[in-house]
Amino acid sequence: MSSDGRVTRNGRLKPVRVAVVGLGYWGPNIVRNLHDAPEAKVVCVCDVSNRSLEKMARRYPAIQRRRSLQKVLDDPSVDAVAVATPVGTHYAIARAALAAGKHVFVEKPLAGSAEEAWELIELARANGLVLMPGHTFLYSPPVNLIRDHFRSGALGDTYFISMSRVNLGIHQPDVSVVWDLGPHDFSILRYWLGENPVAVSAVSRGCVIPDKPDVAFINFEYASGTIAHVELSWLAPSKLRRTTIVGSRQMIVYDDTSAEPVRVFDSGVQLRDPETFGEFQLSYRTGDIISPRVDAVEPLYAELRDFCAAVRGLSQPRSSLQIGFEVIEVIEAVERSLARQGERVHVESTFSATRAG
Amino acid sequence: MSSDGRVTRNGRLKPVRVAVVGLGYWGPNIVRNLHDAPEAKVVCVCDVSNRSLEKMARRYPAIQRRRSLQKVLDDPSVDAVAVATPVGTHYAIARAALAAGKHVFVEKPLAGSAEEAWELIELARANGLVLMPGHTFLYSPPVNLIRDHFRSGALGDTYFISMSRVNLGIHQPDVSVVWDLGPHDFSILRYWLGENPVAVSAVSRGCVIPDKPDVAFINFEYASGTIAHVELSWLAPSKLRRTTIVGSRQMIVYDDTSAEPVRVFDSGVQLRDPETFGEFQLSYRTGDIISPRVDAVEPLYAELRDFCAAVRGLSQPRSSLQIGFEVIEVIEAVERSLARQGERVHVESTFSATRAG
Amino acid sequence: MSSDGRVTRNGRLKPVRVAVVGLGYWGPNIVRNLHDAPEAKVVCVCDVSNRSLEKMARRYPAIQRRRSLQKVLDDPSVDAVAVATPVGTHYAIARAALAAGKHVFVEKPLAGSAEEAWELIELARANGLVLMPGHTFLYSPPVNLIRDHFRSGALGDTYFISMSRVNLGIHQPDVSVVWDLGPHDFSILRYWLGENPVAVSAVSRGCVIPDKPDVAFINFEYASGTIAHVELSWLAPSKLRRTTIVGSRQMIVYDDTSAEPVRVFDSGVQLRDPETFGEFQLSYRTGDIISPRVDAVEPLYAELRDFCAAVRGLSQPRSSLQIGFEVIEVIEAVERSLARQGERVHVESTFSATRAG
Amino acid sequence: MSSDGRVTRNGRLKPVRVAVVGLGYWGPNIVRNLHDAPEAKVVCVCDVSNRSLEKMARRYPAIQRRRSLQKVLDDPSVDAVAVATPVGTHYAIARAALAAGKHVFVEKPLAGSAEEAWELIELARANGLVLMPGHTFLYSPPVNLIRDHFRSGALGDTYFISMSRVNLGIHQPDVSVVWDLGPHDFSILRYWLGENPVAVSAVSRGCVIPDKPDVAFINFEYASGTIAHVELSWLAPSKLRRTTIVGSRQMIVYDDTSAEPVRVFDSGVQLRDPETFGEFQLSYRTGDIISPRVDAVEPLYAELRDFCAAVRGLSQPRSSLQIGFEVIEVIEAVERSLARQGERVHVESTFSATRAG
Repeated sequence: MSSDGRVTRNGRLKPVRVAVVGLGYWGPNIVRNLHDAPEAKVVCVCDVSNRSLEKMARRYPAIQRRRSLQKVLDDPSVDAVAVATPVGTHYAIARAALAAGKHVFVEKPLAGSAEEAWELIELARANGLVLMPGHTFLYSPPVNLIRDHFRSGALGDTYFISMSRVNLGIHQPDVSVVWDLGPHDFSILRYWLGENPVAVSAVSRGCVIPDKPDVAFINFEYASGTIAHVELSWLAPSKLRRTTIVGSRQMIVYDDTSAEPVRVFDSGVQLRDPETFGEFQLSYRTGDIISPRVDAVEPLYAELRDFCAAVRGLSQPRSSLQIGFEVIEVIEAVERSLARQGERVHVESTFSATRAG
Repeated sequence: MSSDGRVTRNGRLKPVRVAVVGLGYWGPNIVRNLHDAPEAKVVCVCDVSNRSLEKMARRYPAIQRRRSLQKVLDDPSVDAVAVATPVGTHYAIARAALAAGKHVFVEKPLAGSAEEAWELIELARANGLVLMPGHTFLYSPPVNLIRDHFRSGALGDTYFISMSRVNLGIHQPDVSVVWDLGPHDFSILRYWLGENPVAVSAVSRGCVIPDKPDVAFINFEYASGTIAHVELSWLAPSKLRRTTIVGSRQMIVYDDTSAEPVRVFDSGVQLRDPETFGEFQLSYRTGDIISPRVDAVEPLYAELRDFCAAVRGLSQPRSSLQIGFEVIEVIEAVERSLARQGERVHVESTFSATRAG
Repeated sequence: MSSDGRVTRNGRLKPVRVAVVGLGYWGPNIVRNLHDAPEAKVVCVCDVSNRSLEKMARRYPAIQRRRSLQKVLDDPSVDAVAVATPVGTHYAIARAALAAGKHVFVEKPLAGSAEEAWELIELARANGLVLMPGHTFLYSPPVNLIRDHFRSGALGDTYFISMSRVNLGIHQPDVSVVWDLGPHDFSILRYWLGENPVAVSAVSRGCVIPDKPDVAFINFEYASGTIAHVELSWLAPSKLRRTTIVGSRQMIVYDDTSAEPVRVFDSGVQLRDPETFGEFQLSYRTGDIISPRVDAVEPLYAELRDFCAAVRGLSQPRSSLQIGFEVIEVIEAVERSLARQGERVHVESTFSATRAG
Repeated sequence: MSSDGRVTRNGRLKPVRVAVVGLGYWGPNIVRNLHDAPEAKVVCVCDVSNRSLEKMARRYPAIQRRRSLQKVLDDPSVDAVAVATPVGTHYAIARAALAAGKHVFVEKPLAGSAEEAWELIELARANGLVLMPGHTFLYSPPVNLIRDHFRSGALGDTYFISMSRVNLGIHQPDVSVVWDLGPHDFSILRYWLGENPVAVSAVSRGCVIPDKPDVAFINFEYASGTIAHVELSWLAPSKLRRTTIVGSRQMIVYDDTSAEPVRVFDSGVQLRDPETFGEFQLSYRTGDIISPRVDAVEPLYAELRDFCAAVRGLSQPRSSLQIGFEVIEVIEAVERSLARQGERVHVESTFSATRAG
C-alpha cells in the first residue's frame, strides 16, 4: 500500500490528505485533531451549512471549504474521507467515498444496519481501501488501563458489569438513544470482554417524543457467564458515566467525568470449601483502593493517528471492522427486543462465521 | 380495640407489651427502638442462640430472655410479637403468634410466598389482630419528602426511575439477593407510584455460590407508562444506594448514604408543538439544584410507633398489608422471569380484586 | 474619546485593534477571546520566542507576528496593547505602551510594586488613555452571583471568609506564590467586601526552592470586623479552590472547580436576648442547600469586552484601577509581614486619600 | 502496682472499677465503651442533673447513680475516675480524685491552664497514680496510619500541614473554640511531628457572642521548618475535618468524615541541581492515589483500654502527660497571640526542661 507517491523526496511518508465531511458537533473536533496530527493534513471540509463552513474558515483559513460531496470525492488530492454526518447518511457517503477510491473513517456506528455495514466492508476489501469505524473509547487511556486488568487476570473472573451513560441536553433528531449512545458502551464491553453478548433484553421509552426512545435499560448475557446492564438516557439530572466492574479478585469503578477516572478496589468474596454438606463458607476481603495515574491523551487524537497509520499500511486499526460490525449486531438485537416488548432475544454473530468466512 | 385493660388508672393508654423474636442483625435494633418508644415496653426477647440472649441481657438486664417461642406465645402478658428471624421462618412464627392471639410485626418480606402471606392476612383479619410488615423505608424522611413531589405534581409526569442498591459484605445464607434487598426498593416504588408494575424482566447470576443469585438487573413496566430499573447486588466496590427519578418537570436524586440524601433538580425538557410536520422542537431547561433539609428521625423508630398505634386501634399502619402483599407479588414475578431465563412476565395483582374482594 | 476615526462608514464603531504582548500560558487565551469578541480585532502578537510565534501562526495565520515590542508600539494601526508577560516586566511594557499612546490591558498584578502602579496610573490619566488590570475573577459568573448575596443583605453580616487556592504543578520562576496566586483571592475579597483589609499577618515557606515562598498562610482583618484566611500554594495533592463564606444569615461555599460552583446554605445561628444575666441563648437553624444555576460565560471573554467598551469610551472597567492598586497594597503588606517573620502589619490605603486626592 | 487485691481467685486481673463523672455529651460514650471493655467495670456514674442520671439508669440499670462527687470519691470500691465535665472543672475534680487515691482519666484538655495541669501531674506522681488526658485522636486508626508515613520516611520532609475542623451546631458555653476544638488538632500535630510549634500567630472573632471566639485562624511554625495552619470554627456550612499534609515525597489528605479517611498521593516536586547559575530546574511527579484500608475501631474504646492497662501497671498511656501538658502550652500561646491582636508569640516548652527535670 505504500506506493512511491506516498513518500516525500527525503524518504519520509507524506501526510495523509483528509477531507472531513460533516461539521456538526463532532466534525470540528476531528478537524482540530487532524490539524494537530503530524501524519495528517486536512485538505478540505464539507458541509451543507454555509454557517458551519464559515465558522471553520474563520479558524482555519487555509482549509478548502465545499458544499458538494461529489467535488470532494472527485478531488484526486484527497486520500481519505472522515465522515461525521448523521447516522442515516453514513452508508451512502461511505459507499460513495469507497467507490471513489478514498480510505474512509466513519463516526460510530459504521452504518445504519448490519446489512449496510457488510456492504461497506466488502466494498473496502474489494478496493483494497481502509474502512474504519470511529469507536473513540477504544483509544481512551482509562478504558485501556482497565482492559489490562481484564487481560492480565488481575480482575479475576468477570462477574458482572453495570454501566450508566446519561445526560440532559442532547436529543438527537434522527436516531434513538440506543443508536446514539449505545455504540460507546457496546464497543467498550466488546473490547474489554473479547466477546459479544449472546442474549439481550431491553426496556425503553420515548419520554419526550412518543416512539422515539430517549431512555433504555438493557440487560446482556454472555457465553462466559458474565452479565451486564447498560442504562442509556438523554434525560438525567446530571452527567453520569459510571461503569462498575465486579470481578472475583478486584472491582473497578470507571467514571469518565471524574478527575480520578479509574478506581481499583482490592476487594472480593472468597468461597471456601463447604465444611459441612450444603453450607458455604464465605469470607469478605476489603483492601486498599487505588486510583492509578492515567495519561492525559485525547482519545480522538490517538484514534485518528491510528487511522492514518492504517492508511499508510503500517498497522491494523484497533477500532476494527469486526468490532464496528458486531456493535451494530448488538444494536439490532436491542431494537428487536424493544420491538417485541422487551422479549429476550439472541444476538446474531455472523462476522467471522458466514460473512468473513 | 381499646378495652379497659389497655388503660392505666389515670386514664392513659398502657404501653404495648412486645416480645422480640430473633436477635440476629436487625432484632437488636427493634429492641433498642421499642425500648426508647414511650408507647411500648419490651417484655421479652427470644432466640435459639444463648450468645445472642446473653449479649442482650448485658445491655437490658430487665428484659426476660427465652429460647422457646412457645413460652413467649403462652405468656398472657405479651400483647404483640415482633418477628426478625430469617425469611423462611416468617410464616410459621407469625401464624403461631396470630393463633395465640398476639398482634404481629414481621420484618420484610411478610412471608416467603404470596400464598403464605395471604393465609397470615386472613388469619389476622379473622382474629381481629394487627399484622404489619416491616417496610422501614416507608418511614424514612427522604422517601416521604420525595413522595410529596410525586403527589403534589411538582415532579410532573414520572418518566422513569433507576435504582441501585449494592454493597459488599452481606451474603444471606437462606435467600437470594432478590428476596433480601428487593423488598426495600419494591416497597419504595409501590409507595411513591401508588401502583405495582404490570410486567417484569430480570437477569441474575450467582457469582460466588452457583444458583444463589447475588446480583440482579430488574426492569419494570407500569400501566402509567413509567419504566424503572432496579439493580440489586451483594457484591460491589462500595455501598451505593442511588435512586434517580426523572420527571417531566423535575429530576430527583435520592442517596440514602449521603449527607444530602435528596437533591431536586429543577431541570427538564420541553416539547413545543411541531412547527413543521414531523419536526419536533425541544428546549432544555437547567435550573437550580436544591438539597432540602431532611428530618433526622430513625425510620425504624417511627415504624414501631406506627405499629403500636395500630395495636392500640388508633390508626392503620402506613406499611400496609396491601403493600406487604404486593411486594411479594413483585418478588414472585421477578423469580418467575429469572426461572424462564429473563423472559418478560406479568405481575399478579390479586390483593384488591380476588382476595380483598 | 469616540472620534470620527473610530466609526465605520455605516456609523458602527470600528473594532478595537489590539496587539497581544506575551504568548506564554495566558497570552494565547487572550488572543482566542479577542479573536471571538466582535468589538476587537487582534492585529498582532509579540513575543521573544519564535516557537510561541510559530504556534500562534499555525492557529491564526492572519495575525501579524513580531519579536520587537518597539515595532508594535510604533504601529499606528494598533489602538491597544494587552500585556501578558511575567510580572517583573509589566511596568516597563505598560509604561512604554502608554507613552506611545496605546490603551493598555495588563494581566494581574498591574505592576511589581505600588510605586510602579501609581506611575502607570498617572501616566494613563495624563494621556487620557485606558489602563486596566486583568483581574479576571471579577467577571466570573459565580463570583458575581455571590457578590449579589453580599450586596442584597441575603448573607447578613459577614462573619468570616476562608479561601484555599492550591495546586501541584505551576511554580513560577520569577515571583513568589503570593504575587502569583494572591491577586486572584485578594481582588475577589476586595470586590465582595468593598473594603481592603486593615491588618495582615502571614507565614510562608519556600519548600522546594529556599527563599522562594511556594506556600503561604495569610490572615486578614477588616475594619468592619470581618476576618479572612487565605491559603496559597503551588504544592498540593489536588487542585483546590474552595472558599467558605460565613454570614449571619447564610453560608456560601464557592468552588471554582466544581460542576456546582456556588452552594448557598440557608443556615445560621441566632442569638436571643439573654434571659438571665450572662447567659446567652443560641438557636441553630439548618435549612435547605441551594446550588443556583450559573451562567457558562468565560470570564476572560467578558473582561476583554469590558476593556474594549472602556477604550470606546462607553463605560468604566469593573476591574478598576483602584482595585488593581489596592490589591498591590495588600500584596506588599503580606510581603512586609513575611519579612518580619509573620508580624501583624497594617495595610496602606492611599488610593483615594493621598494619591487620588 | 498489681497487688493481690487486683487479681481474681483464678489468677486473672480483676476489672478496673471506674466511676464516670459528667454525663453531658461525651460522658455517655465513655460509659458505653467502658461497659464493653473486658478490663473495666463501670461501678457508678455521677452528675448534678437528675435527668442525665435517669437516662443512664434506663439504659444501664445495674450501674450506681450519684449526685455527690464526694460520695464517689469516698467509695473504696472505685479504682478510677473518668472525668467528662466542662473544662473549667477538670482541675478541681481531678485533684480531689487524685487526693482520694483514685486513678484519673480526664477528657481533653487536661486542665484549664498549664499551671493547674502541672499541679495535677505532680500530685499523680507523688501518689503513684495514673493520670491520663483523653486525647482520643491518638487512638484513631487513620491518625496512626498517617503517623507511620511520617515515621517511616515515606512522606519525605514535612513541608506543611493545613487543617480545618469546622461545624455548625456546638457552641460551648464556657470556653472559646480554641479550648474546645484546638486540643484535637494540636494533639494530632504533636503526635505526628514529635515536636510542638515554637511560634504561633492567630486571629479570631466572636461572631455570635462578642468576646467569645467561635472562629480562629492559627498559624504554627516548627523548629524543623514545617509550618502549619489550623482553622477552627463552630460556624460552618457543613462539617469539615480536612487535613492536608504536603511532604517532599508524598502528600496525604485526611478526612475524618469520609468513607476513605486517608488518601495518599504519590506526587511531588523534584528540584534538580541548577544547570546554570540561579536557574532552578523543577520536575513534577504525579503518581497513583491510594486509599489504604483503615481498621474500623472506635478510638475511644482503644483509649479507655489503654487507660485500664496503665492502671494495671502494664504500660504507659500513648496519650501521655507530656502530650497533654504541651497541648495546653500551645493553647495558652494561641490565647496570648489573640490577646495581643494576632502578634506572633513563642510557645513555652517547659515539660522536659524545668518541670520534668
